[in-house]
Amino acid sequence: MDVIEESKSFADQFQVPTFTEDFDDMLKISDLDAVVICSPTDTHAEYTMRAARAGKHIFCEKPLDLSIHRVKEVLDVINESGVKLMIGFNRRFDPNFLKVRESVHAGNIGEAHILKITSRDPGPPPISYIKVSGGIFMDQAIHDFDMARYIMGKEVVEVFSKGAVKVDQAIGKAGDIDTALTTLTFEDGSMANIDNSRKAVYGYDQRLEVFGSGGMVKIENNYPDTHQFYGSKGVHGSLPLHFFLERYTKSYINEMAAFLNAIQNNSEIPVTGSDALSAMKIALAAKKSVIENRPVAIEEI
Amino acid sequence: MDVIEESKSFADQFQVPTFTEDFDDMLKISDLDAVVICSPTDTHAEYTMRAARAGKHIFCEKPLDLSIHRVKEVLDVINESGVKLMIGFNRRFDPNFLKVRESVHAGNIGEAHILKITSRDPGPPPISYIKVSGGIFMDQAIHDFDMARYIMGKEVVEVFSKGAVKVDQAIGKAGDIDTALTTLTFEDGSMANIDNSRKAVYGYDQRLEVFGSGGMVKIENNYPDTHQFYGSKGVHGSLPLHFFLERYTKSYINEMAAFLNAIQNNSEIPVTGSDALSAMKIALAAKKSVIENRPVAIEEI
Amino acid sequence: MDVIEESKSFADQFQVPTFTEDFDDMLKISDLDAVVICSPTDTHAEYTMRAARAGKHIFCEKPLDLSIHRVKEVLDVINESGVKLMIGFNRRFDPNFLKVRESVHAGNIGEAHILKITSRDPGPPPISYIKVSGGIFMDQAIHDFDMARYIMGKEVVEVFSKGAVKVDQAIGKAGDIDTALTTLTFEDGSMANIDNSRKAVYGYDQRLEVFGSGGMVKIENNYPDTHQFYGSKGVHGSLPLHFFLERYTKSYINEMAAFLNAIQNNSEIPVTGSDALSAMKIALAAKKSVIENRPVAIEEI
Amino acid sequence: MDVIEESKSFADQFQVPTFTEDFDDMLKISDLDAVVICSPTDTHAEYTMRAARAGKHIFCEKPLDLSIHRVKEVLDVINESGVKLMIGFNRRFDPNFLKVRESVHAGNIGEAHILKITSRDPGPPPISYIKVSGGIFMDQAIHDFDMARYIMGKEVVEVFSKGAVKVDQAIGKAGDIDTALTTLTFEDGSMANIDNSRKAVYGYDQRLEVFGSGGMVKIENNYPDTHQFYGSKGVHGSLPLHFFLERYTKSYINEMAAFLNAIQNNSEIPVTGSDALSAMKIALAAKKSVIENRPVAIEEI
Repeated sequence: MDVIEESKSFADQFQVPTFTEDFDDMLKISDLDAVVICSPTDTHAEYTMRAARAGKHIFCEKPLDLSIHRVKEVLDVINESGVKLMIGFNRRFDPNFLKVRESVHAGNIGEAHILKITSRDPGPPPISYIKVSGGIFMDQAIHDFDMARYIMGKEVVEVFSKGAVKVDQAIGKAGDIDTALTTLTFEDGSMANIDNSRKAVYGYDQRLEVFGSGGMVKIENNYPDTHQFYGSKGVHGSLPLHFFLERYTKSYINEMAAFLNAIQNNSEIPVTGSDALSAMKIALAAKKSVIENRPVAIEEI
Repeated sequence: MDVIEESKSFADQFQVPTFTEDFDDMLKISDLDAVVICSPTDTHAEYTMRAARAGKHIFCEKPLDLSIHRVKEVLDVINESGVKLMIGFNRRFDPNFLKVRESVHAGNIGEAHILKITSRDPGPPPISYIKVSGGIFMDQAIHDFDMARYIMGKEVVEVFSKGAVKVDQAIGKAGDIDTALTTLTFEDGSMANIDNSRKAVYGYDQRLEVFGSGGMVKIENNYPDTHQFYGSKGVHGSLPLHFFLERYTKSYINEMAAFLNAIQNNSEIPVTGSDALSAMKIALAAKKSVIENRPVAIEEI
Repeated sequence: MDVIEESKSFADQFQVPTFTEDFDDMLKISDLDAVVICSPTDTHAEYTMRAARAGKHIFCEKPLDLSIHRVKEVLDVINESGVKLMIGFNRRFDPNFLKVRESVHAGNIGEAHILKITSRDPGPPPISYIKVSGGIFMDQAIHDFDMARYIMGKEVVEVFSKGAVKVDQAIGKAGDIDTALTTLTFEDGSMANIDNSRKAVYGYDQRLEVFGSGGMVKIENNYPDTHQFYGSKGVHGSLPLHFFLERYTKSYINEMAAFLNAIQNNSEIPVTGSDALSAMKIALAAKKSVIENRPVAIEEI
Repeated sequence: MDVIEESKSFADQFQVPTFTEDFDDMLKISDLDAVVICSPTDTHAEYTMRAARAGKHIFCEKPLDLSIHRVKEVLDVINESGVKLMIGFNRRFDPNFLKVRESVHAGNIGEAHILKITSRDPGPPPISYIKVSGGIFMDQAIHDFDMARYIMGKEVVEVFSKGAVKVDQAIGKAGDIDTALTTLTFEDGSMANIDNSRKAVYGYDQRLEVFGSGGMVKIENNYPDTHQFYGSKGVHGSLPLHFFLERYTKSYINEMAAFLNAIQNNSEIPVTGSDALSAMKIALAAKKSVIENRPVAIEEI
């Protein structure tokens, strides 16, 4: 069964009233309020602009585009059209990250001084994907850059990143790195550290802590079960949930509910195009920082 | 909206083809393979027998009935009719308990010597419910009695329970207890301890450990998030998931999938009427033990 | 080097002014205020009485004697002599158990309903020791019986124990059991469960929890380090501290300091002969309960 | 009692044969093998050189001196004299850090890619101390720089640090910072991140993790007890051990034992003057990096 047949079968199963392979045909459906764009990255900008011009609200997976110029163009179209655009930074809707954000914004840790994010994938994507991904900062770390802004509620002004090829030399040959350590400086002098790896043999590693004048709040990984085995050689537990589909199941559901809710109630979109632009600037600054081995100011981007 | 209207609206929403308020009308639907009985306890036996006689497979919430005589009657009807009957001991399908069972049955802990179960509810049901519930052992602890058999894979031969009214004197006036400590002895001399309370102010407490010649395996509670706050007065974390709907969401889904699977593939039912009978005997022995303050053999029941 | 030479060398190293192999010679030392009795169990009663009659304060390892009649005789001598007697229930001085006691007595958990103690040794003592030990309840579980009284601050009125030989058949042949599950009932109807094993392959297992109307407080085992290794097959940590010398190092130091303090300041002894008698009665009731397979009232002892 | 009287009383209590207030008098004691220097920092270099010239082995608290020129001078004297010099990087002897080092060097995590160290004090020292301390990198973070070299077993080639005054403006006025985030780059491209704060309201925060091709090993803080209280508002535990005296008790004992052992067995010193010099260079590079806002190569120092 090819992808078209599979999609058709899916549409049938859930009694989707219209099925089309043509994006513009879809936009012609008069009682269609909104579209969800999960196509390849290089189509995001075009589809988003077409949908906006057709007056449809849009949920688009990140990134909007790899070019900052193009992203700005899209955001202009969105502004003119008056439709809502939500970007798929799904982690904002994860119960753990939500709890940290809530705790920080409630003032539990006082003034935030240091944010630390650990973000490691269980394994790298295919080299073919790496080549068109925009690189580790634009593809993987961008979620962490968005999270840094989301948790701290402040803007990043400077980025310093170090990178290395440690996982697979083919990634290096493709012009990318697979291991990175990034320091973000916020407008008030507070700081964040983010470490990224394309391969953690123990699974998806998604942890975060914020330290401040009044304390610290941190989250650990999620596990498929809570069992612990005590044997003669030590205490053993399960590996963390393997990758994003398992780890962020709830966040994807919550994210789509938030999008629908914002459309239905005409309320504020929780992740805007401007958020996408800000995260993207950090990613571009990180890349520039690795190449030039120096801290890069966001305003340089 | 009353319960009928609510049900109707639910049926409409999910495009259920037939809606009826009459159990026998439902049984007349010729392409209906199976029924799920979630009605009040005192209707379980009757509905189960009627469905069996109509040739429908049955999923029935526990308990089948409060009378052991009546339960045996139902099981006879099931046997004669040849339909499948599955009992709603949902915890068997919880990822944590499944992991323990798998670990024990894989021989990780060698020969099992001691099983410990903690089973405490966040709060007692209404007194009106307590009165018709069959008591703490038949209503609450019966899940733990089933779990003990499930994990150990052995039969219980003797029960000793102590009970107390500690949560609410009204429970005592209704002829029940709200706090209990039970010792089970298995056929091979291994033992289990179960403690039950109708009220844990910190929420649903569902833990278990099995200790054996080769080690121990244990599970902890589940939490809504993994956050920890480190403040000047200590380290603070979230309360466990509040009650069974939150804690056992996955087990309910897995349970129904297991039922459907057994029907569709004509495979073995994972929780049988015989399992229901065995757990019930332990509950009755526990009640008798509290009243007579002595260990009660299962064969006395 | 035999034990006498070793002791002499130890005495020299710490510049102990007098060394003797004769207990009565030692008691003649006029500026000796107190003695610490760590000799074999069958000498405890005799040495304690001799020391008391010589006007020396006494710290004596548990048990005072295996015969309740003999223990009462010793306590009478203590009372007449006016010296202080402290019994070596060292766990009362462990930071974990102290914290639980403090928390319970501060009212944090409200009224205590259920106490649970896990007490498992890494391995059984030699059969020769088992034979003169007084059995698992008098030798091993007696610490837990004392802990139950200490934590709950209430007296035990009834005991029900089940026992099994699961670790080593030779223990059974020696007339003892190696695995036990005990239910204690306190004067107010609250309850305790204690499980004992002579062999946990993962090391010393010493946990406790108290559940009450206002919450629960519990303690976990102690570990030699906090490391966790995340590999491709799971998460692995160190085994608990191996046995009592590692686990209770602090409690032994605190215990001796408490004894010295009580002597020097003429203040109350924290673990009295009466405490020893109470724990012993529970042990004897537990043994009787296993033999007669029935709950045994403390007043029967 | 002034410090001299106090010292004298201490010497009496432990029957120290000779007491003197004069460093050179002490060096004249012919059967004195080694000296332990715990005097103020500005006396370390002078005392160490005098002791070396007198042929005494030396344990000296870090830092040897705040000037790299002076440290090199001291190391020259040590080399000429042939005595052993051990520097007080006590954390190397802590059971947690030892376990990580052992695990990493056993190859458990494969090739190390990223090291992360959290190092926060419960509160800042007095401003008078800050002024002569050499700054946060030379005074506090130097332990972490040494730990980074110790765990990774590789040399640092580049340092990038960001600093801020977040805890106390008086620290800023004294020319120092109180919050810092440092990125170390090792000779093979692997990286470390260290975050420092002079004030964590929840106590001493000393954690570390190393991530590599084969997994991760990490250590958590140590606690005074393992208790957890489950109340109606959440789960609560004790704060970490408050500061270095509580947290590193064992490491101080092990450290001194290691020094004595190296002297008595004429074996290799576990923390050398060269180690002190390497950590110091990292600290100086970190300071320079903050001032010039750029990565600083170690060879620049």
